[in-house]
Amino acid sequence: MSQAPDDQSTTLQELKGRVAAFVAERDWQQFHTPKNLSMSIAIEAAELMEHFQWLSVEDSRNLGPQALAEIGEELADIVIYSLSLANTLGLDLSQTVQAKMDKNIRKYPADRVKGKAHKYTWYEGKDEG
Amino acid sequence: MSQAPDDQSTTLQELKGRVAAFVAERDWQQFHTPKNLSMSIAIEAAELMEHFQWLSVEDSRNLGPQALAEIGEELADIVIYSLSLANTLGLDLSQTVQAKMDKNIRKYPADRVKGKAHKYTWYEGKDEG
Amino acid sequence: MSQAPDDQSTTLQELKGRVAAFVAERDWQQFHTPKNLSMSIAIEAAELMEHFQWLSVEDSRNLGPQALAEIGEELADIVIYSLSLANTLGLDLSQTVQAKMDKNIRKYPADRVKGKAHKYTWYEGKDEG
Amino acid sequence: MSQAPDDQSTTLQELKGRVAAFVAERDWQQFHTPKNLSMSIAIEAAELMEHFQWLSVEDSRNLGPQALAEIGEELADIVIYSLSLANTLGLDLSQTVQAKMDKNIRKYPADRVKGKAHKYTWYEGKDEG
Repeated sequence: MSQAPDDQSTTLQELKGRVAAFVAERDWQQFHTPKNLSMSIAIEAAELMEHFQWLSVEDSRNLGPQALAEIGEELADIVIYSLSLANTLGLDLSQTVQAKMDKNIRKYPADRVKGKAHKYTWYEGKDEG
Repeated sequence: MSQAPDDQSTTLQELKGRVAAFVAERDWQQFHTPKNLSMSIAIEAAELMEHFQWLSVEDSRNLGPQALAEIGEELADIVIYSLSLANTLGLDLSQTVQAKMDKNIRKYPADRVKGKAHKYTWYEGKDEG
Repeated sequence: MSQAPDDQSTTLQELKGRVAAFVAERDWQQFHTPKNLSMSIAIEAAELMEHFQWLSVEDSRNLGPQALAEIGEELADIVIYSLSLANTLGLDLSQTVQAKMDKNIRKYPADRVKGKAHKYTWYEGKDEG
Repeated sequence: MSQAPDDQSTTLQELKGRVAAFVAERDWQQFHTPKNLSMSIAIEAAELMEHFQWLSVEDSRNLGPQALAEIGEELADIVIYSLSLANTLGLDLSQTVQAKMDKNIRKYPADRVKGKAHKYTWYEGKDEG
């Protein structure tokens, strides 16, 4: 595994290409519609959540190697379906992600939100106002 | 936008690095725990689904430019939180995704499942057996 | 089963009471926090969706007895966790549901939305305007 | 509101009937297919989760009146779609829930699991074994 291409050397297009080939070889484009893929991402996200369902937020930071391996597989499923949706919609993920991050940078200026999760802050203050 | 780095030239590590910087500049690592991030991915996946909630599977293929732009933003949110989770867990996404795809290739041999979604087939046949 | 209490004779409070007893006998109130229960409902909702993931909207209407039994179990899980959350929050579900339905009745006047799902209509029209 | 029918006096059938009337008056049965309703439940579950996304498990117990009101509305949406799905599938919810609880009672004997969430325990022990 140590010589497999890693995040330093792998482009988004390479991963997208592998997913596209996997789907095409099985003739599964007919099932990989945007509606079905959005459900698939949500289903895999729930399988990921299942690992943390009863843990405290803090304990979710301390995972053993077996838990980490299983969690990695669930995250991989989410990413695979996300790449397939990008393929289906003809979206460039790098540009789409960068555009959304630029929007988030303007929405949450670092000097204003530092150390405060917006919702968290909002909840703390909201019923006192 | 046309000159922004695209999927052909952007590595996973570059995107991961941008997300890590965004989180660190806001001191948000304290909120970006695995439990909270798994919820965040699921929440964004639901926002993506909302665009397809009442559409037929077929109609979800025919999206106008405005719908497509909004859907791209939801997908970007899913990818951003997935990258943040990979950062938090110290996971190499390319290797994790590749390992999961190798598993899927063995689980669903192309010549056996061609044109048949497993669940789909399973449902069609299951109550007749 | 035919003599078990049915929807005609069972009140919300009776179901809430059974769930509360189940949780208390296991000393599980400590895990049944609002945050964890919201995750639990989402996880069970995803298990329900999994049955329909690759089906057309139309085919999801034609389910065999075995599929229907499994789907009933997933729906039961969603309802059980929803009742537990109502217990934890001290919410009267009948009043909460009725209040939300009154709001929906005002928001979607029957004569205006008849036969048109709001999102569906919105999507059809939105990119032409 | 204090005289509105409450959980003590409202049967499941009464709530199901109101939801069925709401849907029929808008001619929305065509959209309320099992597939679409499963997505709708998951979408509403995510909107519920959003209120707890950045809170600690413990803080999610201490909600102000405004937060509680909003959370009640999200829970109502989940219940409304669940009732609509029961209507669509012709399921008796009381019997389905009772059957699932009987199964859970056998699966998690009170004397064996008392004070231990199964997943929680499983995680704590799993990498040491």
